[in-house]
Amino acid sequence: MPAAATDPRTSRSRSWWGWGYADAHPDDAECAALGALLPGTLARPLPIPRVTDLPIGRPAATPPSALAHLVTSHPQARAAHAMGKAYRDVIRALRGQPGRIPDLVAHPTTDHEVADLLDWAGDHGVAVIPFGGGSSVVGGVEYRGDTHRAVLSLDLTSMDRVLEIDRAGRSARIQAGALGPLLEDQLRPHGLTLRHFPQSFEFSTLGGWLATRAGGHYATVHTHIDDFVQSLRVVTPSGVSTSWRLPASGAGPSPDRLFLGSEGTLGVITEAWMRLQERPRHKASTSVTFTHFQQALDAVRAIAQSGLAPANCRLLDPGEALLSGASHDGSSVLVLGFESPTTAVEDRLTDALDIARGHGGHAQPTTDREAPADPAVSAWRSAFLRMPYLRDGLARMGAVVETFETAATWDRIPALIDAVRTEVAAAALKATGRPATINCRLTHVYPDGAAPYFTVAVAGRPGAEVEIWDEIKAAATDVLHRHRASVTHHHAVGRDHRPGYDLQRPEPFAMALRAAKNALDPHDILNPGVLID
Amino acid sequence: MPAAATDPRTSRSRSWWGWGYADAHPDDAECAALGALLPGTLARPLPIPRVTDLPIGRPAATPPSALAHLVTSHPQARAAHAMGKAYRDVIRALRGQPGRIPDLVAHPTTDHEVADLLDWAGDHGVAVIPFGGGSSVVGGVEYRGDTHRAVLSLDLTSMDRVLEIDRAGRSARIQAGALGPLLEDQLRPHGLTLRHFPQSFEFSTLGGWLATRAGGHYATVHTHIDDFVQSLRVVTPSGVSTSWRLPASGAGPSPDRLFLGSEGTLGVITEAWMRLQERPRHKASTSVTFTHFQQALDAVRAIAQSGLAPANCRLLDPGEALLSGASHDGSSVLVLGFESPTTAVEDRLTDALDIARGHGGHAQPTTDREAPADPAVSAWRSAFLRMPYLRDGLARMGAVVETFETAATWDRIPALIDAVRTEVAAAALKATGRPATINCRLTHVYPDGAAPYFTVAVAGRPGAEVEIWDEIKAAATDVLHRHRASVTHHHAVGRDHRPGYDLQRPEPFAMALRAAKNALDPHDILNPGVLID
Repeated sequence: MPAAATDPRTSRSRSWWGWGYADAHPDDAECAALGALLPGTLARPLPIPRVTDLPIGRPAATPPSALAHLVTSHPQARAAHAMGKAYRDVIRALRGQPGRIPDLVAHPTTDHEVADLLDWAGDHGVAVIPFGGGSSVVGGVEYRGDTHRAVLSLDLTSMDRVLEIDRAGRSARIQAGALGPLLEDQLRPHGLTLRHFPQSFEFSTLGGWLATRAGGHYATVHTHIDDFVQSLRVVTPSGVSTSWRLPASGAGPSPDRLFLGSEGTLGVITEAWMRLQERPRHKASTSVTFTHFQQALDAVRAIAQSGLAPANCRLLDPGEALLSGASHDGSSVLVLGFESPTTAVEDRLTDALDIARGHGGHAQPTTDREAPADPAVSAWRSAFLRMPYLRDGLARMGAVVETFETAATWDRIPALIDAVRTEVAAAALKATGRPATINCRLTHVYPDGAAPYFTVAVAGRPGAEVEIWDEIKAAATDVLHRHRASVTHHHAVGRDHRPGYDLQRPEPFAMALRAAKNALDPHDILNPGVLID
Repeated sequence: MPAAATDPRTSRSRSWWGWGYADAHPDDAECAALGALLPGTLARPLPIPRVTDLPIGRPAATPPSALAHLVTSHPQARAAHAMGKAYRDVIRALRGQPGRIPDLVAHPTTDHEVADLLDWAGDHGVAVIPFGGGSSVVGGVEYRGDTHRAVLSLDLTSMDRVLEIDRAGRSARIQAGALGPLLEDQLRPHGLTLRHFPQSFEFSTLGGWLATRAGGHYATVHTHIDDFVQSLRVVTPSGVSTSWRLPASGAGPSPDRLFLGSEGTLGVITEAWMRLQERPRHKASTSVTFTHFQQALDAVRAIAQSGLAPANCRLLDPGEALLSGASHDGSSVLVLGFESPTTAVEDRLTDALDIARGHGGHAQPTTDREAPADPAVSAWRSAFLRMPYLRDGLARMGAVVETFETAATWDRIPALIDAVRTEVAAAALKATGRPATINCRLTHVYPDGAAPYFTVAVAGRPGAEVEIWDEIKAAATDVLHRHRASVTHHHAVGRDHRPGYDLQRPEPFAMALRAAKNALDPHDILNPGVLID
């Protein structure tokens, strides 16, 4: 029975309360140094919370003996499955007020076991929260209701195998519980890769990516995991759904697209045939600086519309560039990268740089994989992976630090970004009495729009951090709604985004989704409160 | 009140019983010449059927006076809306046994009028068959039941305007009833194009493409209309669904993807924001011949996996190449084309030709748009657009001539194509006593598979053509099912593909779809019998 506290691949301990590996957390001294950057934070960090201090009672349900070997009620396991990894979750853990702790954690190893657990839960009014790597930042893996007798966290990470590989067709049948690195380990000997690298890559699973329509490696064209799905296997309380393995089909509405983004409310994704890539052999990347952010936006739009299809095309505003060390002079930085398994990519990079220069950009010399990387590119990459750990360090200093992301058409982008900067800053000032830092980057770009990603940082008031963030988030949701920007581009809806999602989703689609939910999950046990009621 | 018999753009008459424009039909002499190619066909063509010979009775329902100006019961209009344009439909018209003739044909001009018509139909038990260009080849636009009091064909072609253009974001809000040429006429002054060119381009509408997930111009990557949808507006009996205009979103399952492919069963698509392209300025195309079909398949797979993304990549087997005049020596022909609005494409064509040569292909000299086209490419293009007219000419000669298409992963493609050739030929022989011609082409290719498209031609027995085709089709459906090949890649399900679709669709998805249908169309008036019961 894995307690999920130790990663079997790395033998490193996963933090139950914060991001990633416990040994990668900033120590007290680094926390203090981080806090010193944000006026008004605490003098010393909040202590790291202990599971033994949590109010973990006896489980309110007992699994039948036939399933008992799959289920644990160990406090450490239950604590580690109580919440995701949003700022809101981390601060609740730090303040000793986590969400409702699940009664039980199950680690099924087969579809049959998943089905049996769902049957038992349905018969006994037990809520089931499907759980992959637990990296949700939208309240997607906790229970907030009070209408179920007990709560079972259904941890899929014991189903982590690549079961079949079709080398000629470049695809593989993969169990949903495989965490990113383990999945890639199994594909690497075949010269293949899924090449899906969200920021949470080490701490999230294929099933989680599929259930939340995760954003991956590519900044253009195939930005979401959706496009790499050949077929899905989903265990629902009303039966197993297995779509055919097809390169494409026009036979009715896509069955897979109903389950993609269903966030565990319609069924449990247990495996998928995924389209894979050859490992890239040609790479070229560089950065471009812009004095004026609007010029940078115009350049990015032109590149997105050029058909050049960069793999990386991320625009950092001055604050974001400064934070990540990509620039120090108030300029915006565009990180550009091209790659291909078969053909040289320097010409495409050159063409993209020509476009950027035409909009006032100053390009660094280009680099390929052999050469030392552009320092701005390297700085951004390192900061990208370290960021969630630093967020938790700041949380320990009493700061309110969180991100939110969205997508909108180009005509709305400038006003949207301005409005977020103005109105979210005003909300933060109102909530804290202090000016907030608000940075923006574009993570994914399209011919018709872009996905802005915002970071907010401001000192909180001790004990009021959750309320402060909720106030700021409400203002953000309001801005996004008024500008018709999506409540999320690739972080899913969960429970935290429900207010915005309910406004955004067309009502007839909500009716269809509720009806589908009733048909597939008649006892309403699957991830209650997520997406629909 | 348009009777839909004359195309207002071209002032040419549309055939009520056969493909396209009446004046483009082969005359009796050409029909006879076509028939001479197929042993056992009639000595002279069946006469062109007349509407006045049809059993068109009084309409079984009368619209309320407030809607009367939108509705006609003119026999010509009713006949023209009785069926689609499958071989099965054409032969039924020729034999004077069309499907049930709708009682009424409505031409709404606004969403309100569509909603009012649905309200009236729901209150009076009238089936509503959404109708675009009427080019369905799967029985998608006729009524086959007997549980509704009357049948209303809801013709959307009076809603044919491009309402808004976002030039910077390269997108446009377009009414669903716009036929292909009219749609492109309105985009052309802006330098933009939807670039969606199904074989039915002149005779099908945006709404029809969306409702059926039509396959378009591109042979790789963005093969279906789905990828070009920014948002949809759908009038359902339970309200209007308007999704936000977004470049991408991860907020729950995609609302648009539920309506894409819903074939008029969940609602009436009345408009869409569509992603557009710049008009291409660089083009290069050529053809490659292969002595061995399997080598051609390997070449096509390698090109599909190369990332070169040809716009055209169609492989004709020897029979198909002979039929279209692309080759006369028993070789297979690969038609390759590249295009771009911004950059030269010759290098990509060169790289693709290198791959083809590596698999035994013999390449013709490349051509660009200024130069005279490769004769094989030209021959194929002309034959492509003329083919449905020739089919109808052969139908008049008593031949059984029809196509069907599918998609499968590469590992299944060779055995699938062999099995179709063997088993469908056997079924045709059994049904007719004559050997059938069965040709194959790949219309769309993917890194993980391809979409084969088959043509069957054999002399029928007078009066038994429908039964013969149904027998052949049943054999084809059985082969596709056993090889796990989709019942359709881009022709939709309609009524004709229901047996195969019901086997292919995962049962839990069927449950969800039925539930969604009950929620959105509680009186079951929308396109009854299509997709679900």
